[in-house]
Amino acid sequence: MPAPATLPRNETGIAAALGILAQRFGERFSRGEDIRRQHGHTMTWLANQPPDAVVFAETTEEVAETVRICADHGVPVIPFGTGTSLEGHLNAPAGGVSIDLARMDQVLRVNAEDLDVVVQPGVTRRQLNEYLRDTGLFFAVDPGADASLGGMAATRASGTNAVRYGTMRDNVVAVEAVLADGTVIRTGGRARKSSAGYDLTRLLVGSEGTLGIITELTLRLHGIPEAISGARCSFPSVEAAAEAVIMTIQIGLPVARIELLDAMAVGAINAYSKLDLPETPLLLLEFHGSEAGVAEQAETFREIAVDAGGTGFAASADAEERGRIWRARHDAYWALRALEPGSDALSTDVCVPISRLAEMISATAEKAREMGITAPILGHAGDGNFHAIFLLDPADPGAAARAERLIGWMSETAIAMEGTVTGEHGIGQGKAAYLDRELGPATDVMRAIKRALDPQDILNPGKIVP
Amino acid sequence: MPAPATLPRNETGIAAALGILAQRFGERFSRGEDIRRQHGHTMTWLANQPPDAVVFAETTEEVAETVRICADHGVPVIPFGTGTSLEGHLNAPAGGVSIDLARMDQVLRVNAEDLDVVVQPGVTRRQLNEYLRDTGLFFAVDPGADASLGGMAATRASGTNAVRYGTMRDNVVAVEAVLADGTVIRTGGRARKSSAGYDLTRLLVGSEGTLGIITELTLRLHGIPEAISGARCSFPSVEAAAEAVIMTIQIGLPVARIELLDAMAVGAINAYSKLDLPETPLLLLEFHGSEAGVAEQAETFREIAVDAGGTGFAASADAEERGRIWRARHDAYWALRALEPGSDALSTDVCVPISRLAEMISATAEKAREMGITAPILGHAGDGNFHAIFLLDPADPGAAARAERLIGWMSETAIAMEGTVTGEHGIGQGKAAYLDRELGPATDVMRAIKRALDPQDILNPGKIVP
Repeated sequence: MPAPATLPRNETGIAAALGILAQRFGERFSRGEDIRRQHGHTMTWLANQPPDAVVFAETTEEVAETVRICADHGVPVIPFGTGTSLEGHLNAPAGGVSIDLARMDQVLRVNAEDLDVVVQPGVTRRQLNEYLRDTGLFFAVDPGADASLGGMAATRASGTNAVRYGTMRDNVVAVEAVLADGTVIRTGGRARKSSAGYDLTRLLVGSEGTLGIITELTLRLHGIPEAISGARCSFPSVEAAAEAVIMTIQIGLPVARIELLDAMAVGAINAYSKLDLPETPLLLLEFHGSEAGVAEQAETFREIAVDAGGTGFAASADAEERGRIWRARHDAYWALRALEPGSDALSTDVCVPISRLAEMISATAEKAREMGITAPILGHAGDGNFHAIFLLDPADPGAAARAERLIGWMSETAIAMEGTVTGEHGIGQGKAAYLDRELGPATDVMRAIKRALDPQDILNPGKIVP
Repeated sequence: MPAPATLPRNETGIAAALGILAQRFGERFSRGEDIRRQHGHTMTWLANQPPDAVVFAETTEEVAETVRICADHGVPVIPFGTGTSLEGHLNAPAGGVSIDLARMDQVLRVNAEDLDVVVQPGVTRRQLNEYLRDTGLFFAVDPGADASLGGMAATRASGTNAVRYGTMRDNVVAVEAVLADGTVIRTGGRARKSSAGYDLTRLLVGSEGTLGIITELTLRLHGIPEAISGARCSFPSVEAAAEAVIMTIQIGLPVARIELLDAMAVGAINAYSKLDLPETPLLLLEFHGSEAGVAEQAETFREIAVDAGGTGFAASADAEERGRIWRARHDAYWALRALEPGSDALSTDVCVPISRLAEMISATAEKAREMGITAPILGHAGDGNFHAIFLLDPADPGAAARAERLIGWMSETAIAMEGTVTGEHGIGQGKAAYLDRELGPATDVMRAIKRALDPQDILNPGKIVP
């Protein structure tokens, strides 16, 4: 795996801060190697750069205190939730202290009438939905991993049902955050909208821990739909599938999920889950609404799909049958890995206008073939966002460099199509080289904001705008 | 009308910059008093503070050039669209140059497949929807006034159908903007979502011209619904109406509009529009969807309304009949003004969690009565946002001070209910005193960002964080 650049270490400061933190936090402070490595990263494809120590914080005040101690000594602090980010967000290229927020795991208040909830950052999305079970409400953003809500906000996570319910950008009402000097701010109340000054909520969402550490979140909830229906349809080509997606979005059909799997991904799933889907591009859909509503939506989609050349349409509002239809997607990660047993998997994402999605996916598949990289593709087609999963032979010394070249090519191609180098994984270390290419002088504005709010560059240094 | 504070003027700089701009822009540069006054404000309730001159820009490069000239001489620049903002956003408390963007009025590109459009900032929302007429698409944000899209983005405008389609926060995909030093940036491409770095789009949306001047916008469009139905229902109390609103939102009924008028507003409309609505709180609704869908939505709402004590329910998907149902709302502004002919009208807004909406509205009406201010109320009830329209006797020397006290009381009360001092009008000059009260130390973050991006404080000084 490629080793990200290291940054200069402030050895004196680190030693001093660690001494104070050890005393202050006792057993909730660790320098153990396993713990440090685990906090450097878990799921990212980049090589591990562990922090020097980990503090397990239990309150906002403890986070603030830790940041103040680190700020006094010019030492980096890196917030940690569940470690499921993908672009090296948790690495410590200049060393420093990881603040583990997993113990801040309380749901503080459900406001059912207002469809909002106040949570601590270490609550995971599944834990929250479990907690909400009896309220008739749910939290909609679903990035796949059972990530912490603080981490999901920090990376502006999204997932399969963003097409209907939006991303973390849309579902975070306000946050409490600890700034680089230990100040605690709150970016808003619980109103559903506000025009009161700069949108600091949206500035912190997606800032990847580089501007502040999120210590509390007010999140938007949705009513659990009366009925949920699942559907699938095969298409002769990615172009035909994308045509159906475009029509679906254009007529405003409120699909809750619309996922695209390319032929290679379908083949992998057939093999792994013992299914016999046609090995051509597949769309999987979910409809939320009243019973009559989801039936009408499914029928409308069927007509669109058939017009676009779709075949093998199946739909059901029955929970078990719906589970079977969606099985292909739920098993996808392990099915894709099984294409090349023993391989390393690297998941990368780009996002383009949906009119360019078919072209982007086809070109990516072609380029991967040319470069000898096995790369099945899964997409949140309604958003124009997709993942290519590179399966790399760990024994092949050239594999990592080829993968990086392919990521570079995908990034350049997405930019040329007026898209973005990442729709949901974030920049971290892995995509930092492409941010300037995408946004040019706007990245200088990001740097100016970073300098203004964190003049010592101690908050998650080396990420977004290193 | 209250006179906002003035700020120190840089007379030498202003004289020098005006000389250069006069030469550069010829007939598109004006120092005429009428033009200057009209650019200081049109619809705000605050006293006029005209700029020293107006430049009528026609290109991004001309905006950048004007900003560079003003930056070289430390002279304020204030962007101007249609002048329909309400909180003194356009006033020039330190003098300077208003840049009128109305001539940048071209729709540059409609991307029907991607549901987006690229426009210049002087395009108004009606002009855009007129342009889109044959595409089956529309731009959803509707603040009432036929405002420019650049101005709507700058003030994070919203309006009656934000409950379904969101505010400018949700409907701006990316912007091009001129910064305080004349640099031109673009905050993104046309992807529907992105995790690439800080959300500069959302930072500029709602920054009221204090961080950059928006010179181009990529906006999200929606498909014109197959069917639109209108409905109305009267309620015995604001509490009963709010109960129906809460249930409606909670079950996820996708209402496109849900407007609340208090008894005083209904009385005014009866008198003005010769209607005979019961003079009790009224909800007006609009449903968008398929023909079956809107009928189902209207019926579901009827059941909710009746449960909450609603009477006189009427609904229709017929365009003419729907027009009659909504007539009450369309005539509202003039109807309310007619309550006290010759009065000055001051429109203020706050936004609270919808569980607190009834309490907030009732308390506001009671407080206004106590203070002797006639103040009918109209609300975007689904968002918890409402307007109180103060009708003030221009011959009463104490009226303005009383109005300011009532605004202060409403702001404090909304904050205590975890709401915001403005849901859609913005801060400008009028609400600047309450921003610190609402957000405390978070306003220091706003100040730090402002200083970092505009160290000379030349972009619309005296607004948001004066």
